[in-house]
Amino acid sequence: MSSTERPGEDSLIARFFAPIAGTGGLGLTDDAACLTPKPGHDLVLTADALVERVHFLPEDAPGSIARKALGVNVSDLAAKGADPAGFLLSLALPGTWTEEWLTAFAAGLGEASRDFACPLLGGDTVKTTGPLTLSVTAVGEVPAGRMVRRTSARVGDLICVTGTIGDAALGLKLRSDPAWAGSLSPDEKAHLADRYLHPRPRHRLAAALRDHASAAMDVSDGLAGDLAKMMRVSGASALIEADRVPLSGAAARAIQASPDLLDLALTGGDDYEILCTVSEMNLDTFRKEADRVGIALSVIGRVVPGRDLPVFRMNGLERRYDVGSYQHF
Amino acid sequence: MSSTERPGEDSLIARFFAPIAGTGGLGLTDDAACLTPKPGHDLVLTADALVERVHFLPEDAPGSIARKALGVNVSDLAAKGADPAGFLLSLALPGTWTEEWLTAFAAGLGEASRDFACPLLGGDTVKTTGPLTLSVTAVGEVPAGRMVRRTSARVGDLICVTGTIGDAALGLKLRSDPAWAGSLSPDEKAHLADRYLHPRPRHRLAAALRDHASAAMDVSDGLAGDLAKMMRVSGASALIEADRVPLSGAAARAIQASPDLLDLALTGGDDYEILCTVSEMNLDTFRKEADRVGIALSVIGRVVPGRDLPVFRMNGLERRYDVGSYQHF
Repeated sequence: MSSTERPGEDSLIARFFAPIAGTGGLGLTDDAACLTPKPGHDLVLTADALVERVHFLPEDAPGSIARKALGVNVSDLAAKGADPAGFLLSLALPGTWTEEWLTAFAAGLGEASRDFACPLLGGDTVKTTGPLTLSVTAVGEVPAGRMVRRTSARVGDLICVTGTIGDAALGLKLRSDPAWAGSLSPDEKAHLADRYLHPRPRHRLAAALRDHASAAMDVSDGLAGDLAKMMRVSGASALIEADRVPLSGAAARAIQASPDLLDLALTGGDDYEILCTVSEMNLDTFRKEADRVGIALSVIGRVVPGRDLPVFRMNGLERRYDVGSYQHF
Repeated sequence: MSSTERPGEDSLIARFFAPIAGTGGLGLTDDAACLTPKPGHDLVLTADALVERVHFLPEDAPGSIARKALGVNVSDLAAKGADPAGFLLSLALPGTWTEEWLTAFAAGLGEASRDFACPLLGGDTVKTTGPLTLSVTAVGEVPAGRMVRRTSARVGDLICVTGTIGDAALGLKLRSDPAWAGSLSPDEKAHLADRYLHPRPRHRLAAALRDHASAAMDVSDGLAGDLAKMMRVSGASALIEADRVPLSGAAARAIQASPDLLDLALTGGDDYEILCTVSEMNLDTFRKEADRVGIALSVIGRVVPGRDLPVFRMNGLERRYDVGSYQHF
């Protein structure tokens, strides 16, 4: 499409986004979306922005970028025990976009929207002279008063994580510096790369979290840092058995070959797993619910009194990660 | 602040944004906000993004940029008849931000949030290598089923606008090319410049719009283009008496000096007034309600049958503006 044939915003929306919109989006023909909340429910709202070269790479497939932008927001909803109700997308497009790119982006967005049961409600598309920037606001629903907080972990609770930890950070490292990965099979490398590209939000765990977890958040900035954050706002500390932190076969093999990579797995970002605390008496039921929706759950430690950084026990040593927040300004 | 002392996202939020957050924002200590909708109400959701050099200028005061980002969204809510319930802000910050800038930005955001009765609920702050980019998602409430649509103008309805039209476009022109404005007083110039910088969302008209308007939208991309949009999606056309389009004293004097500027006033963006259609029998009550909340209302024409672009009658001539959508990609 030549620059003189560039469409206006309305035709761009009608062509690429209206076909994937949910009913609340009113065909994207109005200024705003309309959502009728379930009676007796609260709304949970979260926003996450992604910037090219900061949160994804220019060579990433457009469909993957779209899936990630939605996935990281649905992951936040899941951690709060909220069922997705829909999302809005603000897209700041550099002038270099092509029809092919936007077609693939919208297809990926539509597919992710269906997979996560989170319909497109509206948004905005603007020009930028800078990098591609996406901001998603996702809306979810919980029965009134039942949002799962980050601040309510209790001393004595067990600390659990879903899935596996560290894959995404290793997947990202694989792209910038693949030398260490010589011992991995092509399948293992593909697994790690895919985990960086395609977050797997645990939205199917939302109901179980609100029924059984005392606190929860998603692991987006690294397990050690996010755990420290949760413990700080809960007024507690944590003791983690590092060998219980669940690793994929690929991550385990990578760490076996280069033991230093364990630190990266425990502190690197982009896991999009759920970190939660559960009282001992709730664990069995919680685990059954997780099994039922096909989500692996690992108990990795316990909430302990104190204000110190969480301790990771490994090979008889104790380690504290002073990672602070992942992203510095 | 030197770059080695850059804070993490959490301390940046705690310092600049938590103090201005509403209760639904939970002190911005969690991953998500929680909003308890009013029983029997629908939620209206809208998102608008602003990019430096596209939607505001680098030399604009940080507080003005913040106010504009929120104001354009509250304007969308107002046009839908929705009362503001809160907003989320995604902020993509270039590395050059200073403490002074962010302090002024947060102060302006807090002030606008109070003025528009629209509390901060949450958001995200990320780094960008490009221009400052803000994306706001605003949430409003309407009694169930009462959102005012853009698509429902009826043939025979009167067409109204609030406030005055064209000031912002003239205010922007004043900044890039002030030569034409020699006949304006300093106060008049200041008025036009202020209207570009500081949208005045008509949120106090929301209740009257849902009670009396058959269709509404805010005028953000120019009166002629937005009216054409509303008529197209309503399956109608419009006849406008151009001399009834309300102009400020400053705009009237500018157009008197340079008659060509009328086209700019009618097609330029950033008015953030309300364009609505009202049946003749509702007009008196609607006008009384507008008076009561101190918002000027002008009847500028009528919805007519047809599919053609709206006609603007001026000095015995008929004019159609084929402006399409303001922003081209």
